Amino acid sequence: MTPYQTLLQHYRTLVDLRAAASVLRWDQQTQMPPGGAAGRARQLATLSRMEHELHTSETTARLLEAARDAADPASDEARAVAVLQEDYDRATRFPAAFVAELTQLVAMSHGIWAKARAESDFSQFAPVLAQLVAKMQQAAEYMGYDEHPYDGLLKRYERGMTTADVTRIFDGHRARLVALVDTLSRQPQVDDSFLHQPFDRDKQRAFALDIVQKFGFDMSRGVQAVSVHPFCTSFGVNDVRITTRFYDDFLNPALFGMMHEAGHAMYEQGSAQELDGTPLAGGTSLGVHESQSRLWENIVGRSAGFWSWALPQLQQTFPQLARVSLEAFVKGINKVQRSFIRVEADEATYNLHIMLRFDLEKDILTGKIRVQDLPKEWNGRFEEYLGITPPDDAQGVLQDVHWSSGLMGYFPTYALGNLLSVQYYNAALAAHPSIPDDIAQGKFDTLLDWLRVNIHQHGRKYTAAELTQRITGGDIDSTPYMDYLERKFKSIYGL
Amino acid sequence: MTPYQTLLQHYRTLVDLRAAASVLRWDQQTQMPPGGAAGRARQLATLSRMEHELHTSETTARLLEAARDAADPASDEARAVAVLQEDYDRATRFPAAFVAELTQLVAMSHGIWAKARAESDFSQFAPVLAQLVAKMQQAAEYMGYDEHPYDGLLKRYERGMTTADVTRIFDGHRARLVALVDTLSRQPQVDDSFLHQPFDRDKQRAFALDIVQKFGFDMSRGVQAVSVHPFCTSFGVNDVRITTRFYDDFLNPALFGMMHEAGHAMYEQGSAQELDGTPLAGGTSLGVHESQSRLWENIVGRSAGFWSWALPQLQQTFPQLARVSLEAFVKGINKVQRSFIRVEADEATYNLHIMLRFDLEKDILTGKIRVQDLPKEWNGRFEEYLGITPPDDAQGVLQDVHWSSGLMGYFPTYALGNLLSVQYYNAALAAHPSIPDDIAQGKFDTLLDWLRVNIHQHGRKYTAAELTQRITGGDIDSTPYMDYLERKFKSIYGL
Repeated sequence: MTPYQTLLQHYRTLVDLRAAASVLRWDQQTQMPPGGAAGRARQLATLSRMEHELHTSETTARLLEAARDAADPASDEARAVAVLQEDYDRATRFPAAFVAELTQLVAMSHGIWAKARAESDFSQFAPVLAQLVAKMQQAAEYMGYDEHPYDGLLKRYERGMTTADVTRIFDGHRARLVALVDTLSRQPQVDDSFLHQPFDRDKQRAFALDIVQKFGFDMSRGVQAVSVHPFCTSFGVNDVRITTRFYDDFLNPALFGMMHEAGHAMYEQGSAQELDGTPLAGGTSLGVHESQSRLWENIVGRSAGFWSWALPQLQQTFPQLARVSLEAFVKGINKVQRSFIRVEADEATYNLHIMLRFDLEKDILTGKIRVQDLPKEWNGRFEEYLGITPPDDAQGVLQDVHWSSGLMGYFPTYALGNLLSVQYYNAALAAHPSIPDDIAQGKFDTLLDWLRVNIHQHGRKYTAAELTQRITGGDIDSTPYMDYLERKFKSIYGL
Repeated sequence: MTPYQTLLQHYRTLVDLRAAASVLRWDQQTQMPPGGAAGRARQLATLSRMEHELHTSETTARLLEAARDAADPASDEARAVAVLQEDYDRATRFPAAFVAELTQLVAMSHGIWAKARAESDFSQFAPVLAQLVAKMQQAAEYMGYDEHPYDGLLKRYERGMTTADVTRIFDGHRARLVALVDTLSRQPQVDDSFLHQPFDRDKQRAFALDIVQKFGFDMSRGVQAVSVHPFCTSFGVNDVRITTRFYDDFLNPALFGMMHEAGHAMYEQGSAQELDGTPLAGGTSLGVHESQSRLWENIVGRSAGFWSWALPQLQQTFPQLARVSLEAFVKGINKVQRSFIRVEADEATYNLHIMLRFDLEKDILTGKIRVQDLPKEWNGRFEEYLGITPPDDAQGVLQDVHWSSGLMGYFPTYALGNLLSVQYYNAALAAHPSIPDDIAQGKFDTLLDWLRVNIHQHGRKYTAAELTQRITGGDIDSTPYMDYLERKFKSIYGL
């Protein structure tokens, strides 16, 4: 065996332990009875400990070095070794005591945050949030950074992206986005009441599953189940799972939620088969992952072309929609509305929610904003970006689970995903101008094949920046996204 | 920490790895897509290897010794250490190379056996079965035995039981069983056609789940799902899972299959909470485990008293049964019939199927029977015990999956379970004579509480023999079982 093969062989055990932990988490979210909670936490802690021990062992370091020394620097092997080296560095940056303290703090924080949110009382969460911020500051130091401490956090979630990059990208489209939302908000109220009526859950599931399978989600290598918070998880290239949350009287979570998760899942299913069982399978970054889910959910799934094909079928499934015109339907599912909750935000307002969080996270990390001032800062900036003020902290600064989970530096990836989705879709369109017509005929493989070849098959081989460079010849850029939004919403709103 | 506490601490990781593997197998049987098979096999192999390495490590040996030296020989601790020592000895008996060869042989054998059975052609299976038998002979030597090589296999599945014991027990009731089956076979044919008609699956599931929850299967600490082969598995005292196979036009698998698995599950859920997370939770032997499933399936679930309470509810669920009388129903679900397939055998004929397998396994292990002569030997003995001759090998020597799975010495535990179920039930009855009346009123906690206190809570602390001694003051004995069968079937058949 070559040093590279020996390295991959060593990683098999790690990949298997990670997959086993993912199966346990999947079961936990989709099927586990309440009594199983304590045992499951213990089992996951054991698997995570064993994975961490093996990953950060001297054997890993030695095999990485041997593989790096043996590989032609211009080869795919060298690129793969570099990815694994980055993983290793990231895993070894935090001292064991710090990981233990953070884990314990997060375990305690979740309940406190949930109660504070339920009672809309930031003061309950503030003390533990201050501790979490201190830990994040430490984490940034451990991770290291050149310019801004936030770089140290960001690099955990988006390889190769800096705070300066994100600032530039966000600054590059904030004003245009605020203006668009402002224009749309002054239009007559959109009627989407037809989406809020009783819909049989089994029929919702059957319809949405049929759509995502037509998109290309392969059920011989995938599963769909129900959970409170929708997610996608993968145990390998050939076993990728998604969950959905169904409502008795609201259609969107089934339709667009399933399309979103299927977008993630098709990316995972699309890694080249030879990457299966290696740490190189899967998505290259959270931003690129989100680009795939947003592409299928929004660019395809919320397009007029798609519904010109799909609406008659939906109407057959749900006769109560029979009298909704295509135009009214497309307008309803694309309703733009200034609202307080990020996870319910539409395509036009979404990135503004993220920008707000990015601003606050940066400043809280450097101490420019104090924890106790967060509600005031949140509400002020919300008014500035979205023109409305949250009525309470539950609908403001307390809404997200992320901080209580020890996740800072994560939010930007959502917005980057939106930008990338349009850049990648435009590249696919340039290669295959028939794609919109194909979609309007229920034919999705032109698009999926392009994504497979240009993005999915590579797994983690290229960073987001390298991938974007290969595809667009340039960097991540907000202009295509803004052009797309303006064109789409001006058409829908008849402006 | 005391040496015993240190030992249990060490075992936590083992227990967690075993539980994780069980979750992966549960998912494999209940939900995994076809594409997941190869990855899952790899993940399970990794977990099993890590578990085995840790279990058979010098650390385990050292901690066992320290705990043994420190424990008062008369204490529960000493008993627990002895159980763990036995586990350790069993795990270390097979050399790694042997385990690898056996695993590989079994992986190959399953497909060959399945094809041979499908084509009812023993000659296809014979060569690989000969290899399996050679491996079982080696296994017996590795395990060690005093009198008969079969002891070496038996002790893997039923601690403390010898071939001489089983022979004595089987010899002790074979003639009486053959005579009973002979008598019953000469009675007029029983009509059970009402069990074979269309039944809605969802209603089957809801009815059976309601019954087993009334028995005491705790769904806040358990799950029921669907699989091709019903089974029970446990990830700890507070997360115990069962599966069921439903048929569109046959009620028994839902009803009695679910009662059977729930019997296993209640045993697992009944371990004392302080045993959770230790290797001492769960069932003490396969025979005792089977006694619990058979007790709920047969002694309770196929009794006239139980159905005097449950039949009206079943008839409400399935109006097509409205005109079936209690007497006809009880007779139908207790139909005794000489048949070829063990897993479909009734209470009266079941142990005869086992005796046949025990005879053959013993003789094939010593070389007294040659592999190529198995079909002839099987059919001859079948005629002798059951009075009928299998028409082909698929319905004869090829029917069971066990040998192709490397399981020899396992079958006797099924028959021992039948015997023990009656011995334990009789003891419960002696303590609480109201149990039959309680059952006839849908009240099952008198019985369950007795089982919890006398059997379940102890987990693996007592061997089957010790438990039986504590409960009955004697050994495992076939007389109570035969008395029960004769009384029950003479009553049902009006003899």
